[in-house]
Amino acid sequence: MPVNIPTLLPEQLLSINGVVLGIAEAGIKKPGRKDLLVMLLDEGTQVVGVFTQNRFCAAPVMVAKQHLTQSSIRALVVNTGNANAGTGEAGIQHALFTCSELARLLGCTAQQVLPFSTGVIMEPLPVDKIVAGLPAAVAHSKADNWFGAAQAIMTTDIVPKAVSRQVQIGGKTVTITGIAKGSGMIRPNMATMLGYVATDAVITRDLLQKLVQYATDHSFNRITVDGDTSTNDAFVVMATGKAGHQEIISQMSVEFSQLQEAVTTVAAELAKMIVRDGEGATKFITVQVDAGRDADECAKVAYAIAHSPLIKTAFFASDPNLGRILAAIGYAGVGDLEVNDIRLYLDNVLVAELGGRASNYREEDGQRVMNQSEITVRVVLNRGEASTTVWTCDFSYDYVKINASYRS
Amino acid sequence: MPVNIPTLLPEQLLSINGVVLGIAEAGIKKPGRKDLLVMLLDEGTQVVGVFTQNRFCAAPVMVAKQHLTQSSIRALVVNTGNANAGTGEAGIQHALFTCSELARLLGCTAQQVLPFSTGVIMEPLPVDKIVAGLPAAVAHSKADNWFGAAQAIMTTDIVPKAVSRQVQIGGKTVTITGIAKGSGMIRPNMATMLGYVATDAVITRDLLQKLVQYATDHSFNRITVDGDTSTNDAFVVMATGKAGHQEIISQMSVEFSQLQEAVTTVAAELAKMIVRDGEGATKFITVQVDAGRDADECAKVAYAIAHSPLIKTAFFASDPNLGRILAAIGYAGVGDLEVNDIRLYLDNVLVAELGGRASNYREEDGQRVMNQSEITVRVVLNRGEASTTVWTCDFSYDYVKINASYRS
Repeated sequence: MPVNIPTLLPEQLLSINGVVLGIAEAGIKKPGRKDLLVMLLDEGTQVVGVFTQNRFCAAPVMVAKQHLTQSSIRALVVNTGNANAGTGEAGIQHALFTCSELARLLGCTAQQVLPFSTGVIMEPLPVDKIVAGLPAAVAHSKADNWFGAAQAIMTTDIVPKAVSRQVQIGGKTVTITGIAKGSGMIRPNMATMLGYVATDAVITRDLLQKLVQYATDHSFNRITVDGDTSTNDAFVVMATGKAGHQEIISQMSVEFSQLQEAVTTVAAELAKMIVRDGEGATKFITVQVDAGRDADECAKVAYAIAHSPLIKTAFFASDPNLGRILAAIGYAGVGDLEVNDIRLYLDNVLVAELGGRASNYREEDGQRVMNQSEITVRVVLNRGEASTTVWTCDFSYDYVKINASYRS
Repeated sequence: MPVNIPTLLPEQLLSINGVVLGIAEAGIKKPGRKDLLVMLLDEGTQVVGVFTQNRFCAAPVMVAKQHLTQSSIRALVVNTGNANAGTGEAGIQHALFTCSELARLLGCTAQQVLPFSTGVIMEPLPVDKIVAGLPAAVAHSKADNWFGAAQAIMTTDIVPKAVSRQVQIGGKTVTITGIAKGSGMIRPNMATMLGYVATDAVITRDLLQKLVQYATDHSFNRITVDGDTSTNDAFVVMATGKAGHQEIISQMSVEFSQLQEAVTTVAAELAKMIVRDGEGATKFITVQVDAGRDADECAKVAYAIAHSPLIKTAFFASDPNLGRILAAIGYAGVGDLEVNDIRLYLDNVLVAELGGRASNYREEDGQRVMNQSEITVRVVLNRGEASTTVWTCDFSYDYVKINASYRS
């Protein structure tokens, strides 16, 4: 079960002026499951995205990247149940055909549509089903449909993931609403599975591109469930420009900082929801590495801990077998690490120092923290000023169960 | 259950002239479990070793490395149940005390003893129990005790791991016998958990050092169970020089090649046994990456596949969800990989080419291979001459079970 995700109510999600969403049951997944989403954008909406760095990136990722460089985007189309990845030239054709069919319905060009897919890899996209589902999705599109949209992009996710925020910018209320999906194959590298954030803020495309990179680096690029980087990762931010404040044109402006902060908060909330709903997750783990020489070595140590199956199974078992964390720090690949300088904390309990167990450490203190559903592992390297935080979950029987039976 | 390890019979293991082994129940582990091993070596035995590169390496690793540079080694002492890692300065003192107590019994110096430990990390070594067990181990030491030795070093291993081979070198029969332990926290980096190979071959120490590095690189450095590099990895080769052939003094000699080949074969057999007995393993997977530009990029691709929890759970489920393998190839970190050039085979079944599923691939062919207990994944990169092979196992409920309850 997801770890401490409050139940989401449809009315908590705020509409974004300039965006309508339509969903449909295209029959790619099992009957009764919504599996198709279209997001229709008013003219003038600025759209930017970051995408997976997987070399076997999916056909829709290749097409979406190209369309983003060519045109003003008017629509996004997302199917679940099939990733259209590892599908060669046919996959590209299927993605392009999906775009052109949606464009025909909307009266725009195929280049103004971004395609996205998520699901099984290396199986042909059932493009006919998707195309057949488009008219219904378009016909029923509406502004207050973010909850349905969050549901329609789920795969192994147990709960829909969405969040809304409002901030005051230039005397106007700016609204931000985002949805995301992802539960396994999560070790983003540029972006996570699928994340979409829309806002009515008024901002240039160049600045929005800078903003999305910052937001990604502080949200989706900080989470891991199983260390597997997906072929289909994408994170898209859309700004409709309807909020009525003066256009944000400088990266140095207060308004840019306000918007960047707000979008990053939404993205980080969504990213953490993905971890909380990580396949089989029973605990939410924050790994914080402090006082490193640079962010890179902090990340190495943090990911070594966050990816270790031994540590993740110990969290699942609530077993304070914390020597496994020392072992992971030791093999993280920081060659000149001086182990005697390192301090390891579990929440506020000092576990290890001077190369071994802290003299005041008592097993019952470690046990008390391990019993919690939310745990912070903090490693102080004592060799610099840099810090990195990574979010992950534990590793349970259910992870194996979910992934052993994914296609059945 | 271990995957296809033939039942080992004590009489299959050949004694090595110049080596006697003694075991004892020191009470570190549960009652009734042998947990202490001494290996006593005749004077003149050449001993070399390779050790973990984990920065949190165990106290006995630090002591053993130092003793190897100082002295002619006369004895090894191995305890299970406690790794003496993450134990700071006290751990070093405990390891040294173990050496000096064994040295006192044998009439040699403490520097002539190599200590080894394996088990739980970051708990104080019960050095008094170990020292109390030494006299019995020494008193009952004998040449035909390799089976008992293999049993005495087991932790989560289900079966003891040992192998003997004989080769003709310089007109004489040379015998090689090795034992190893290890089942989880296996992603060796210089060596695996614990491996000991003895031979009566006659060879200089310098050449034996070269030989051990080669043997390690082609055996223990090619396996992974869970990607966790242990704090205590060590692989030691001992040559007693009793076989009667002329001393091997040149790396260019036929005799060196013969011995290197034979020791590597023994080490590779032991390494594969570790994978076959990998925690929770139900399948033995060979990952072979061919036609890469260099061994490094082949290894990146091979380990990306061998470490992916998604792929390992699919093997457990016998589910030919092979797109996950493409995803792992894509995120392996080979930046300029051209996916259209890659071919993926499951045993002899061509699964993918030209960036997608092969046109002749049929799901039932993939299913047939996935149902086997031994599977070869072969990736042809088509961009060079280099190859690498890595051995691993699948990822089952039992891996989680074993590691969630390791200390209980």
